[in-house]
Amino acid sequence: MAKDDNCIFCKIAAGEIPSEQILADETAVAFLDIGPLAEGHVLLIPRAHYVTLDEMPAAEAAAVLRHLPALVKAVKAATGRPGVNVLQNNGKAAHQEVPHVHFHVIPRGAGDAFHFNWPAGQYAEGRMAALGRDLRAAL
Amino acid sequence: MAKDDNCIFCKIAAGEIPSEQILADETAVAFLDIGPLAEGHVLLIPRAHYVTLDEMPAAEAAAVLRHLPALVKAVKAATGRPGVNVLQNNGKAAHQEVPHVHFHVIPRGAGDAFHFNWPAGQYAEGRMAALGRDLRAAL
Repeated sequence: MAKDDNCIFCKIAAGEIPSEQILADETAVAFLDIGPLAEGHVLLIPRAHYVTLDEMPAAEAAAVLRHLPALVKAVKAATGRPGVNVLQNNGKAAHQEVPHVHFHVIPRGAGDAFHFNWPAGQYAEGRMAALGRDLRAAL
Repeated sequence: MAKDDNCIFCKIAAGEIPSEQILADETAVAFLDIGPLAEGHVLLIPRAHYVTLDEMPAAEAAAVLRHLPALVKAVKAATGRPGVNVLQNNGKAAHQEVPHVHFHVIPRGAGDAFHFNWPAGQYAEGRMAALGRDLRAAL
């Protein structure tokens, strides 16, 4: 399994740095973020070191992300918050801070501090079809 | 498979409403969001109707989310943007607009319109351990 000796999340997965662990199996670990956007903010990571999600094999993504439903349910139950965002950031342009794939599970509710805008745009005639062709070709 | 006859994403998955489809298999469909946060903004959904992620069986989440690495890679390649956010919203408090589970794959880069803050907090002594107990008990 790929490991980066300078990576804080590799060290947490290996138990070399303590964490408040929520679940663990041979592929994935989930633990509380020490700089939470809200109380109960959980991180889900692969044990293996990948910087961004596009580096992960599909089967490994499946093995890690199968835990998301249970984590969302547990975060709702334990915090009593009515909403949950799942957020994963790839690259500095997307606000990635630790270069090891991690999914944030963030409780949301009235008065919370985290927020985002939603500047929905629209496509010019023909642009969606062109992008669709480019995306399918890039798969 | 659960289907809601009033759900726009159920209709898109069934081909009853057209979409610019990026990939599809027996469990999942991905297509371009018609109100994009940036050009190339893709949605990945389960074919079956679940309102929020905590309703999904783990195996079905795995079967859907195994496509995320390839979609992130394709979005980067097709748009040339250096970053990608994966975002999934559960509940109105988390900005969920369509009540059928969907993962946003959002290209990010200089000058884009979508953004979020990152008001990282910290825990009082003992609070992480208490939340950890509550979360593990709620799993």
